Order: sequence, then C-alpha cells, then structure tokens
Amino acid sequence: VATDHGAGARRVTLLTDFGTADGYVAAMKGAIAGIAASVIIDDASHDLPPGDIAAAAWSLAGYWDVYPPGTIHVVVVDPGVGTHRNALAIRIDNRFLVGPDNGVFTHVMAGTAAWDAVRLTERRYARGAVSATFHGRDIFAPAAAHLANGVALQELGPPLETRPVSLALDPARREGREVHGAVVHVDRFGNLITNIPAAWAPPGSRVTIAGRTMRVLRTYGDVEPGQLLALEGSRGVIEVAARDARACDALGAGVGERVRGNG
Amino acid sequence: VATDHGAGARRVTLLTDFGTADGYVAAMKGAIAGIAASVIIDDASHDLPPGDIAAAAWSLAGYWDVYPPGTIHVVVVDPGVGTHRNALAIRIDNRFLVGPDNGVFTHVMAGTAAWDAVRLTERRYARGAVSATFHGRDIFAPAAAHLANGVALQELGPPLETRPVSLALDPARREGREVHGAVVHVDRFGNLITNIPAAWAPPGSRVTIAGRTMRVLRTYGDVEPGQLLALEGSRGVIEVAARDARACDALGAGVGERVRGNG
Amino acid sequence: VATDHGAGARRVTLLTDFGTADGYVAAMKGAIAGIAASVIIDDASHDLPPGDIAAAAWSLAGYWDVYPPGTIHVVVVDPGVGTHRNALAIRIDNRFLVGPDNGVFTHVMAGTAAWDAVRLTERRYARGAVSATFHGRDIFAPAAAHLANGVALQELGPPLETRPVSLALDPARREGREVHGAVVHVDRFGNLITNIPAAWAPPGSRVTIAGRTMRVLRTYGDVEPGQLLALEGSRGVIEVAARDARACDALGAGVGERVRGNG
Repeated sequence: VATDHGAGARRVTLLTDFGTADGYVAAMKGAIAGIAASVIIDDASHDLPPGDIAAAAWSLAGYWDVYPPGTIHVVVVDPGVGTHRNALAIRIDNRFLVGPDNGVFTHVMAGTAAWDAVRLTERRYARGAVSATFHGRDIFAPAAAHLANGVALQELGPPLETRPVSLALDPARREGREVHGAVVHVDRFGNLITNIPAAWAPPGSRVTIAGRTMRVLRTYGDVEPGQLLALEGSRGVIEVAARDARACDALGAGVGERVRGNG
Repeated sequence: VATDHGAGARRVTLLTDFGTADGYVAAMKGAIAGIAASVIIDDASHDLPPGDIAAAAWSLAGYWDVYPPGTIHVVVVDPGVGTHRNALAIRIDNRFLVGPDNGVFTHVMAGTAAWDAVRLTERRYARGAVSATFHGRDIFAPAAAHLANGVALQELGPPLETRPVSLALDPARREGREVHGAVVHVDRFGNLITNIPAAWAPPGSRVTIAGRTMRVLRTYGDVEPGQLLALEGSRGVIEVAARDARACDALGAGVGERVRGNG
Repeated sequence: VATDHGAGARRVTLLTDFGTADGYVAAMKGAIAGIAASVIIDDASHDLPPGDIAAAAWSLAGYWDVYPPGTIHVVVVDPGVGTHRNALAIRIDNRFLVGPDNGVFTHVMAGTAAWDAVRLTERRYARGAVSATFHGRDIFAPAAAHLANGVALQELGPPLETRPVSLALDPARREGREVHGAVVHVDRFGNLITNIPAAWAPPGSRVTIAGRTMRVLRTYGDVEPGQLLALEGSRGVIEVAARDARACDALGAGVGERVRGNG
C-alpha cells in the first residue's frame, strides 16, 4: 500500500455540527491521533446547526480546494447515523473527503466529472468496536487517519456504484438580459449570498431583491456606511450586503429570497 | 531527566470554560509554545459552562483514552483558583492529566487503581510570575509543556498524598430484574445520557423515563423520525434519544431525571 | 531571502470575528497550508463580536508576547475591507503581526518604540485573485504563510510611513493619593477589568466602583463566595471580581464605568 498524495498529506480538517462541549469532537481528534500521531488537525467548524446538511455542504465548498492537494477533509453532519446511509471516502482533485453519503458533498461534486468514491466497509480501518451512534469517532476519523498515513483510497472499501447523494440545487438562470436567482446562504455578517455567477451581473448592472433595486459595485467602499450594495463575493457569486450593517435585517430577507439581475 | 512516553507525546489537548474571545485560551497556547515549540495543541472545548466541574469531568471522560499514550490533557475549569485547592499532574494508563484538584478528573479516576499524581509546586516549571487568577497560563500550561518535552512527572512536584478530589457519583444499581439509574448528561442533540451500563439493559428490554416506556433498540434507524427510543450510546451506557428530534424536549427531562430499566 | 526568526517560526495564530460556520476561517487555514504545508495554526478566537476592533485589540494584547519569538499573529476584524485602509505586517519584539490598519494593534503598539511595518502590496505574496471582500483569505493568510516560510518582512511591501492606526486610549491617572481609571473590558466570567496598573492600587488600598467600595486583596480565596473584591488580574491591572459570581451583574457595571482608587 503506497501513498499517492504529496507533501500536504498529513493535514486533516474537521467540520461537524457537534459543538465542542460534549467531548465528541475531541474523541474524533483522539481517534485520528491514535492512528496518525503527528497529523495536524485543523478545526473547520463544529458550530453548524444540528443536522443541517445544506449548511455543511455550503461551508465545505468555501475551503476544500483552498487547502493543498493531499488534504483530508472530514465532514460529519450525520442525522442518519444508524440508518442505511453509506459512509464514504472520495478523492477529487487530489483532495480527500470523508463523511456520510447524505448530500454534504453536494457543492464539491457539482460539475465535477473526475472523482473516485468508496464505501467505508473495511472493518480493519475502523475502530475496534463501532457504535451505532458515533461514526465520527468510529468510522470517519479512523478512515481519515489511515488516508493521512498513506493507505490507498481503494483499501478502505468497495467502489461506490452510484454518484454520491446530492441535494437538489436550483441554479440561477438567464432569460435574455435578465438573470433569475435566489439567496442560498446568509453569513454571520448578515450578507445575502446568491447563486448568481458574478459574470452574469457585472459592475454597473442592477440587482433587485425584496422590492429594492441596487447597483452592482466593486467594494464596500463604493457606498456610505449603512447603504446596501451588490458585489462579487469571495466565492465568485453575487452577494447583497450593507456597509457596516446587516443586509438580511435591512431587507428582511433570508435563504430562498428571489433575486433578479438586469445586465 | 528522560522521557518515558512514546511517539504521541508531543500532543496537548485543552479543555476549559474560558470561551475564546478574551484571549485567555490563546495565552495558554502561547505559554505552551514558548516551552515546547513544536507541540501540537488540540482544542477539546472552551465552551463548557463557566465553573461547571461536572461538565468538564464528563467531557474529558469521552476522549482522554481515545487519544494515544503520551498525550497530555489539560483541563482548566477552576472556580477555586486563588484558594487552597491543589494543582495536579496525574499519569494514568500512560496519558497525562493536568489541572486543578477539584473533581474534573472524577470519571477518569473512577475505578482506576493505578495512577501517579503530583502537586505542581516546582516554580521552575511554572511561569516566571504566577498570577493569582490565571493558573491556566501560569502553572497548568507550563507543566503540560514540560511533560511534552519529556520532563518526568516526579520533577514537577511532590506526590499527592491523597486521592484526587472526586465528585460524588450515584451509580446505577440493579434490584432483581430492575435497573435504577438517572440521566447524567444532556448533549447538544438533546440526547439523554444515563448512567446505566448498556449490558444491564440489552436490546429488547424496556426503559421508563418521565412516565414514558420505550424499548431498547440497536440504532436510530429502528424507529421512525420523531419517535423516541433507548439504545447503547457511544460510551457504553444507555441513552434515550429521538430520531431527528430532541428527546430532552419531547420528554421534558434533564440531568437527574430517574430512569428505570426492565430486563 | 533569509529567515530571521528562530525555532518557533512556523506557528501562526488566528483571531477573527468570522465565527466558524461559514467556512471563512477554514479558507484562511487552507490558504496558509497551501503555502506553508507544515505550519501549525492555533486558533486564538473567531468569536469576537462582529466588527469590534477594540475587542480584537484587547484580546490580542493578552497573548501576542506570551507566544515565543517568531510567532506570526494574524488578526482579521476588518469592517473596512474594500475601503482605503492599509493591510499591514508588523514586526515587534521579534513576533509578527498581520492584519488591517484599523486599530487592532493598538495595545501591542502602545508604548513600543521599536517596530517595523510594511504595507502588504506585493501581489506575488497574495492569492492569485484578490477578492474585494475577503482579504483574510487573499492577503493576510498568504502573507502570514510566507513569513512562516522565512520570507523577510521587507519583501512583502513598502514601509508604512506613519504609525499604525491606534484607537484612542484613555489611560488611568493619579492625582495625589487618588487614582482615576475605568473599566476597559468585561470578560466571560463577568470580571470587570480596569486600566489601573496594579502597582497604583496595591493590596490593602481601596477601590470604588458604581457606588461600592472594596478592598484590594490578593486572591479570590480572601473573600467568601459571592463577595466582591478587587485584585491584580492576569495582565497586571486591577480587576473587580466576585468569588464564584459575576461582578458585572452584582454591580450593574460595564465597559466605561469609572473606577477610583485610594492608596
């Protein structure tokens, strides 16, 4: 069994809805450290809303490929633990993804043709006793640690014979000069992040949301404090924001709100 | 002074009730890094309820021995800082535990015969100036870092001449075919975790709590969404849960609620 | 380009107001790992109140120099991202500080004569495409990673020709035997932290706040549970605290409350 991932291989990230106070996250870290003693474990987040698969999928999409090749990303938002959902490890673009097959990899998989996925069924790469309720510690963390140690993906179990489960995405669409999209995420700062590619609503065009129309600008500095604007956000899609204020509150808008662009 | 702990030695975990925003946790990390530059520091949690020694003891029990031998676990929930409580380092099962002698090690110590404990009185292994209010930075973090560097436990101070302080535990008990226990923890998902060993209430038996009786099953998948069940949780004790729902809310039950099992 | 910082160099700390759930922090970590694969990243905090520059400045002051020389501290509380504020890297006392020039380094800079600062304008040390909204990922994280790799400060951009921006501090002052100060921070435990140097209000003197006068003592253990006291806190200034209780609630006091000392 040889390693096929380079210098950045011994870094594992964790994304869960566990919070930290119950000790579940630390148990995952211990399970990793017990197999791969010197791996660096980066917390992505443990503050996802409990059971919110869509939030996990969205969060993961923001960092999985910012990390270098060889990184192993573990995602455990797993309301179906103890049901028949599969446990997966996936290789895409030379990063590894480990977690339940419930949609948490939706955005990563979207539009990707080249990937390998296996079902984590090999018990010798799991914890000795696998509980019915905590596959984060007993299956996903050990699989990630073995990948960090250079175990090949194919060793962990048989190929997944389907595509991984994906959440239904409703992409933005263009009709002539109009763009129709929606808010897909509201972040901690109250920014309304849409599914409209920035190239479809360039600076100078207009965006309408919740009865308000605003110009697409380049930066927060293009408006006065408190004012609304639309701009290209950090993921290449249009965000509706307010300088030094919460756009979601100013507009009374949230996830699902329709957004219309005019080129 | 030689090291007596193996390959996993240079990993330190931190469990506190400090939150992170005040910079106290980062000061502990800096104090460790200043002594043991390349040690990996894993956050267990900093979100414990302030002063909640029982919560710390319970959380620690979930991960301390999942980590490999040589790991150093620091626990600072320390409402008695500046009083006469002892500061401890303990070796159990080749892991190290560092923290105040106030009960935070209760579950780790329970039923353990073999342990060594010292009082952290050697000033040369503490910060130059020890404050009256922040032993996390000034005593516990330096002690952990020196252990990570291979300093022997006995160097840190004189043996503790008593057992470490333990919280009163009220274990479950059996009377004939009946089991009597209680809820000892409610986790982030609303699961009610009891002190009843899973072997005392095997699948097929029944559990009664808050006037409701339910069967002990194997996994969440054995019931429909929203339904209550009892099952063996990830620590080997009975949990009362609800699939995709919060059992604590469904039952109006919390820590201390009595639980009865019928074999 | 040679390194000028020693053994502790490959440690980076992160302090932000991002929370973790949106994936922004993980993107910063990934950007660092992509440049400096084996650097250890310590979370200071991501729970600062959004946009609270003063809280960031205060938190940072508690740990920046507890970490060893060579450490790189990244601070991203950046409500002005996309305006004309500068992006900085600073070297002070052989630690590095990276973040926006908006006051987050106020306490670190206060009273420091020797420092070097550059503006982060060299695009080859930034992410390929720099967004208008997320300089944490695109400018600050890459700069920190390059510093960790040994790139010299001066390589990152031209010298800052002014002092970094500082928040207005209102230091405590003495008039005869009286000391006049104020509460500058309330921590998670409800302790009221003042700007009065502990040497100005030694044990035995008195402190008055919110109409209550109390003695300056040495430790929490000098009063009964629930009682108020003043004492030297972990940063060398006077704190007003209550043993096993929240002084801020007991006194109805918060940041800005005046504090008077009598020697």
